[in-house]
Amino acid sequence: MRILVIGGVAGGMSAAARARRLDEHAEIIVFEKGRYVSFANCGLPYHVGGEIEQDSYLLLHSPESLKAELDLDVRIEHEVIGIDRDAQTVLVATPEGTETFEYDALVLSPGADAIVPPIPGVDLPEVTHLRTVDEARELAGRTANAKRAVVMGAGFIGLETAEAFRHRGLEVTLVELAPQVLPPLAPEMSALVEKELTSHGVDVRAGVAATGIRAGGDDAAVTVTLGDGTEVPADIVVMSVGVRPNTALAGEAGLELTDRGAIVVDEFQQTSDAHIWAAGDAIAVRHGVTGQVGPVPLAGPANRQGRRAADSIMGRSDKAQPVLGTAIVRTFGLTAATTGASPRMLDQAGIEYFVVHTHPANHAGYYPGSQVLHLMGVFSPEGKLLGAQAVGPDGADKRIDVLATALRAGFSADDIAELELAYAPPFGSAKDPVNMLGFLAQNVVNGTTKVWTVGELDWARDNALILDVRSEREYAMGHLPEAVNLPHTHIREYIEGVKQIAAGRPVRVLCASGVRSYYAHRVLAQHGLDSATLDGGMFTLVDAVPGLELATGAFQPA
Amino acid sequence: MRILVIGGVAGGMSAAARARRLDEHAEIIVFEKGRYVSFANCGLPYHVGGEIEQDSYLLLHSPESLKAELDLDVRIEHEVIGIDRDAQTVLVATPEGTETFEYDALVLSPGADAIVPPIPGVDLPEVTHLRTVDEARELAGRTANAKRAVVMGAGFIGLETAEAFRHRGLEVTLVELAPQVLPPLAPEMSALVEKELTSHGVDVRAGVAATGIRAGGDDAAVTVTLGDGTEVPADIVVMSVGVRPNTALAGEAGLELTDRGAIVVDEFQQTSDAHIWAAGDAIAVRHGVTGQVGPVPLAGPANRQGRRAADSIMGRSDKAQPVLGTAIVRTFGLTAATTGASPRMLDQAGIEYFVVHTHPANHAGYYPGSQVLHLMGVFSPEGKLLGAQAVGPDGADKRIDVLATALRAGFSADDIAELELAYAPPFGSAKDPVNMLGFLAQNVVNGTTKVWTVGELDWARDNALILDVRSEREYAMGHLPEAVNLPHTHIREYIEGVKQIAAGRPVRVLCASGVRSYYAHRVLAQHGLDSATLDGGMFTLVDAVPGLELATGAFQPA
Repeated sequence: MRILVIGGVAGGMSAAARARRLDEHAEIIVFEKGRYVSFANCGLPYHVGGEIEQDSYLLLHSPESLKAELDLDVRIEHEVIGIDRDAQTVLVATPEGTETFEYDALVLSPGADAIVPPIPGVDLPEVTHLRTVDEARELAGRTANAKRAVVMGAGFIGLETAEAFRHRGLEVTLVELAPQVLPPLAPEMSALVEKELTSHGVDVRAGVAATGIRAGGDDAAVTVTLGDGTEVPADIVVMSVGVRPNTALAGEAGLELTDRGAIVVDEFQQTSDAHIWAAGDAIAVRHGVTGQVGPVPLAGPANRQGRRAADSIMGRSDKAQPVLGTAIVRTFGLTAATTGASPRMLDQAGIEYFVVHTHPANHAGYYPGSQVLHLMGVFSPEGKLLGAQAVGPDGADKRIDVLATALRAGFSADDIAELELAYAPPFGSAKDPVNMLGFLAQNVVNGTTKVWTVGELDWARDNALILDVRSEREYAMGHLPEAVNLPHTHIREYIEGVKQIAAGRPVRVLCASGVRSYYAHRVLAQHGLDSATLDGGMFTLVDAVPGLELATGAFQPA
Repeated sequence: MRILVIGGVAGGMSAAARARRLDEHAEIIVFEKGRYVSFANCGLPYHVGGEIEQDSYLLLHSPESLKAELDLDVRIEHEVIGIDRDAQTVLVATPEGTETFEYDALVLSPGADAIVPPIPGVDLPEVTHLRTVDEARELAGRTANAKRAVVMGAGFIGLETAEAFRHRGLEVTLVELAPQVLPPLAPEMSALVEKELTSHGVDVRAGVAATGIRAGGDDAAVTVTLGDGTEVPADIVVMSVGVRPNTALAGEAGLELTDRGAIVVDEFQQTSDAHIWAAGDAIAVRHGVTGQVGPVPLAGPANRQGRRAADSIMGRSDKAQPVLGTAIVRTFGLTAATTGASPRMLDQAGIEYFVVHTHPANHAGYYPGSQVLHLMGVFSPEGKLLGAQAVGPDGADKRIDVLATALRAGFSADDIAELELAYAPPFGSAKDPVNMLGFLAQNVVNGTTKVWTVGELDWARDNALILDVRSEREYAMGHLPEAVNLPHTHIREYIEGVKQIAAGRPVRVLCASGVRSYYAHRVLAQHGLDSATLDGGMFTLVDAVPGLELATGAFQPA
């Protein structure tokens, strides 16, 4: 049996390695158009920033090591330029000319190409991408003589690249077309990341497009013009605005593609041709929550898809699980992570949901070094987990991994409340942040709590008594101008007073994070008031409403 | 409605707080025999060690704060000394004499008592426990004038206490009756913890009992005598040999107890009396894997049991999940964590299983600071997850939390292999250690790999060719004297030579962690040899066999 693999990174290399482990006698040839195989794609920004000092660390394998370890025939600088499905051959451009290879099984793992926005100047030599080891090496070198960098695109890799340049001491401007950094995140979670970027000197320009790049400028190699008319001088411009499946070859061969050009595969990674499998960034996968089908360019799924393609070629039948889109990025001292569906994705898919926010300590508050973790859960009206996001200096990765596992299990808020996670003071709390998220959602589903959300702020200002149940000191440091202050420990004492001030209006309670306002809400509701507690409290409110005006000073009763 | 709660920590306080949130109008009285309620039990060792400097940090609430926040009537130094179930009353010893209280619902959360071994001298003033804030405070104070401490019992709290004393500069001897520290861990995992303790100056004496304590000795307040005849001088002796349910009161009241004296409850925390609920360390719970019923004294379950008791009192019907025994401890720079069933528990329960070990990097190896994580999975012969343990400097807590969630979901090796966890170089790998564990178990179940284990070492020495496929350099630094060295990258080249040396014997392959030996095993098996790969490699072997003798130097072919 001869297996040909197109693409020598992630999905392709996983397929080749697994195929060899399963079949010692197969002939396995891997074609890689670039100079390197099996390199650490996700490590490139860290080499640019100098955290990974030697570029050799990025090269996990060479054709020689793969030959010795797995008896793979790896051909670098070999680009497959044609597939003849009837003849079961591929045409390969090699450094010595073209050559034809027969196959019994063909694995496509061509990856994705960087999107290049159609603006003037993108072909200037100062404008580059960060997709290959060569590009990383070159960028690392260029930082020595550069003063200013512009990074286009504030997705996961854009953020890592911006941080890398800051590590090298460059001034960095981060340009993002969407109105926020990290578009997969909910705006109020993204706001935390933007603050972290800004506090580390990154000039964030969100909600604006670059309209052109021209050579020269204010003591800089090039000048980037933005849609708002501002100009940004730069010595380096990195494009990181997204990728699209590299499927010209698959398309020309007549393989079924989605409308948007991703390769269609079944749950065994098989394409519309029974002799061809595909894996990685070029394929369409089904989203585990929304059911929508499209590419999800992530390393973890790519590796497992490659492994599964090999299993399928060898006659095994483990099926693909739908993809959850679990992803994470470290931005300076902060981690942001997500799994499953975001509110935006659910809106687009027309799926009902509600959201809860919590801001617990990442570990027992009484143990030194605890820090606030911002955690968001998305649930169906019946309480089934649909997605989660976390932002915080520490412990965000753990909670998202747990919730990604819970999501895969189809868990409900009840299940999440009951999860038995490892607790000792340096690691969590007896009621872990994940459990807290479950409790919150459970209380919403069964009506124990009624929440109001940031979206209802304008309505509440006009129609409700906004009751701020934080301490007098917290209130004095910044509060909604309309809010009346009554610390939650006095709520029972002044219940008649609240009724009087409410004068028949609903009461919308808030505190810092939503815990004390929940306590107060329960008291008010059981005294017959139309009460609700602000989901996520002032933490979420301030992050969700940019430029929210707060008043200071003690509460003055009318 | 009047609810009485016996015990003002963890389970009891969770019940009281939840009851109030659900019913603003109930009368809720909490009786606590000690001076403090709602204190941070799990934080006590950290106060002894000085990491939590002020003892006030351990006091999360006072009767006053609980009155203000939750309208709870908390009575400290009130010990309930009798329950009259027919009359629905309790008799309480108060500082002013006894008093009788009626109840509609009674919640028992009396906790557990420290076991005091029946040896001479345990009543000496230098001998103490670490169960209360007063004891923590006193011990913290005593460290100033003490030079040497003995900690009896190397369970979770014993380990934390030993570390606390080292932080204070004391010489510490840790005595454990079981043959290893942290008895819930498998021996090879425990060995890693013992090394960490030893390397931080703790004198570990495992497999030996203390037989007596006497006043005076070699420049010390007391002398502890051990079963092996050695004597250990000490200024402080802390007993941490375990706890037993504090259920004398429940027993006298005629509530159903298990053979071993734990309170029997149903899945709504209700005891054999329809008006009495119970939560926490005094109750028996069903283990989620073995099905065995007994006390599992852990903070997380206790808190959720208390919450559920309140829900049940209020007519809600969320059922308890069986307990998985998820637990964790930090020992100096190392974390050890466990969830589900250990091999020992499964042996006792007569449940079949197999074990796999892996030693991956806690995050991408090419990113700075990666460290080895030791991960063990226990699976049913069909591949269902039964338990997991992790030991490592970083990332052990995350993996055990993910696996505890997977365990709750009833996941198999296939499911674990497919988990989509958050990957960026600082946090994990595209194939996370958890996925690797799934791959390993999957390969065992479907026969892709055949493993041999440490238990087969003697057999292999006598009957097999032991093939060490590490590099020549690794081999030279320490290998089994019987092992023949053939680096895995040369396995195909010398396959005939291997056959010759094996001379019909089985081949038992090993490497450092089990990855390269798996590759080699696949080659050998497909060339018709009876081959198997050592689970966990030399890492696991060295940890599992104390005093294993290794030879050094290059391989000399016969």
